[in-house]
Amino acid sequence: MHIESVDLFYLSMPQVLDIADGSQDALLVRVRAGGHEGWGECEAAPLPSIASMVCPMSHGACKPVQASVLGQPLNDITDIERIHRLVRLHSFDLLQADHTLSGIDMALWDLMGKKLSEPVWRLLGYEQSQPKMPYASVLFGDTPQETLEKGKRAQTNGFRAAKFGWGPFGRDLQTDIAHVQAAREGIGPDGILLIDAGTVWGDDLDAAAARVPILKECRATWLEEPFDKEAFEAHQRLAALCGPVKIAGGEGSHNAYMGKHMIDYARVGFIQIDAGRIGGITPAKQVADHAVAQGVTYVNHTFQSHLALSASLQPYAGLSGHTICEYPVELKPLAYELSRNHLERDANGQICAPDAPGLGITLDLDAIKRYLVDVQVEVQGKVLYRTPQVD
Amino acid sequence: MHIESVDLFYLSMPQVLDIADGSQDALLVRVRAGGHEGWGECEAAPLPSIASMVCPMSHGACKPVQASVLGQPLNDITDIERIHRLVRLHSFDLLQADHTLSGIDMALWDLMGKKLSEPVWRLLGYEQSQPKMPYASVLFGDTPQETLEKGKRAQTNGFRAAKFGWGPFGRDLQTDIAHVQAAREGIGPDGILLIDAGTVWGDDLDAAAARVPILKECRATWLEEPFDKEAFEAHQRLAALCGPVKIAGGEGSHNAYMGKHMIDYARVGFIQIDAGRIGGITPAKQVADHAVAQGVTYVNHTFQSHLALSASLQPYAGLSGHTICEYPVELKPLAYELSRNHLERDANGQICAPDAPGLGITLDLDAIKRYLVDVQVEVQGKVLYRTPQVD
Repeated sequence: MHIESVDLFYLSMPQVLDIADGSQDALLVRVRAGGHEGWGECEAAPLPSIASMVCPMSHGACKPVQASVLGQPLNDITDIERIHRLVRLHSFDLLQADHTLSGIDMALWDLMGKKLSEPVWRLLGYEQSQPKMPYASVLFGDTPQETLEKGKRAQTNGFRAAKFGWGPFGRDLQTDIAHVQAAREGIGPDGILLIDAGTVWGDDLDAAAARVPILKECRATWLEEPFDKEAFEAHQRLAALCGPVKIAGGEGSHNAYMGKHMIDYARVGFIQIDAGRIGGITPAKQVADHAVAQGVTYVNHTFQSHLALSASLQPYAGLSGHTICEYPVELKPLAYELSRNHLERDANGQICAPDAPGLGITLDLDAIKRYLVDVQVEVQGKVLYRTPQVD
Repeated sequence: MHIESVDLFYLSMPQVLDIADGSQDALLVRVRAGGHEGWGECEAAPLPSIASMVCPMSHGACKPVQASVLGQPLNDITDIERIHRLVRLHSFDLLQADHTLSGIDMALWDLMGKKLSEPVWRLLGYEQSQPKMPYASVLFGDTPQETLEKGKRAQTNGFRAAKFGWGPFGRDLQTDIAHVQAAREGIGPDGILLIDAGTVWGDDLDAAAARVPILKECRATWLEEPFDKEAFEAHQRLAALCGPVKIAGGEGSHNAYMGKHMIDYARVGFIQIDAGRIGGITPAKQVADHAVAQGVTYVNHTFQSHLALSASLQPYAGLSGHTICEYPVELKPLAYELSRNHLERDANGQICAPDAPGLGITLDLDAIKRYLVDVQVEVQGKVLYRTPQVD
């Protein structure tokens, strides 16, 4: 079979707020081939990704993404990696292409899984989909008391792990100490405590190092994004100081090399990959393989729909030692409603990548229509993109 | 003063060919503030960059680039770095933003230089604009005889350095040996010989290592892009084998960290930076400073207009030991005609960043109008972008 169509759908909440919540809009990708259909989702600004899909060619190494996808043969899963290489070769100088490719790659895996009646994780070579333990991701409170209450609430809601981040954290040492202690107290002595610094220290090693004693004392499992994501040396030096507290990072990686560099040069102990940014499931799996080889733990990064969540779980679904997963708990209605089924927590509070063909997620076309954004892009009087029909 | 407007102009040749020639289209940026005007040029796919400028906000860390630029105070050159940080903070998750920022950053430097009646290189702290020696950049011939003739022609045209790349190179060892020998013979025993492998070996160290003896024998000054740009380990190992032949790379860097990593981890001996990709003159200068500190030689990467060429020379204009420069010799009419003046070679065959306010390049508005592409982007019935007036 050949790829007959690749359609992009831009969805948005009626109002998008200036907060760090990536579920306020979405760019869905639908691929059709040989009577089958697959869906994916880009973690990206929808309009630039649409433009990268349909733009006129700039030169031989700066072609629109669709030039390497439309009409391509798709007969087995090796074709996905081949198409991947084509996009990276022909859109070499088109920066946005990696984000656009992410949703396309997911849709190709979903389509092949449905065609072969296999879950994607099995096509990736895993025999089982291992249960993952979701952590509750919350902002630090404005006061340590609020942080304490948020920790208690996470525990009450059945979360054995909680991540606290952003808010007031990172500016005043004594305040940070109080918040980390409150977070530990809130989730209880057995809870898994994760701290997210949201790149607050730039590349200032001393600022980060000053927090290491309290992180050790409160038995934090990881310190996430202490620095700019590319500040390898600062990461590496901090990792050497942290002992049992591991550094976590990698969500910004937009190709497999970048994810591997976070392991090899930044020396993270937890590598966090967003399949919606790194170029899809294909490069994410390469990073997972490298993590296993290097003794580093893989974790998904996901702040979007359950379609994106399923896609982000696939690359490490079969890795039994890699149990923590990010699980978006406060999704905007758009991101929750766009699928009919969801990855619900079981009696143990755990989730699994679905044991169902493809990504195992059924889209809700009526919901998609409700949030669909009408876009038209014209160049020299010719319409290059117009929001396609959902059905 | 405040930034009153930032306008993007997409230019294109009537026909864009499927060849590795980046001068077939252009994205110009015009910034106006306080009665002054500055111009820059992005090395990027114009349409995705336009979209990154005007797209609706996705969330707090994924805003359109214009949100961090329009209306900003611009009173001295420290404001440029401040605006730079704002864009990277607010468009953190918008991959294309770095390419768009590149042209804006150039335009801000151009504007401030004009306002202060100083060339940009002086604002960067250099006392003089040092002469640079352009190399002729040519493709390997289909046969060694053709390569020989191309080398001779470069010499006849007054070039003391020539770069040969792409074409048949990289596939068959004996063919490569014949071509490298022909290139050396063509440019003569005193010519500076540069070889560009165009990432042909992926991350295959053995394939690259097999070419090292002939590169040494023919006294190549550099071997450019032997591997995928992020394949640090392969670069580093090859550099250790190459002795006097240095590795060159870095053109794909889209922030200062990436350029520095090419020096620190890939161990290039020549760091090639395109100011139209890395985020403009600001981060390019940071990489130049790092190169000096590490004993690595800085070289511009430019395949566009003389506006882009001037911008790409500024970050190392005052570095006297860093003499080689890329000089686009076969520009498409669009890229040549869009400026009224050009950086012509002097009697010694050398060029200098202009000793004139700003970037020292005067745009030809009539030429810009001739190549202007009409674009309209509509979201929910509202026009977010329409090709602006040139005058």
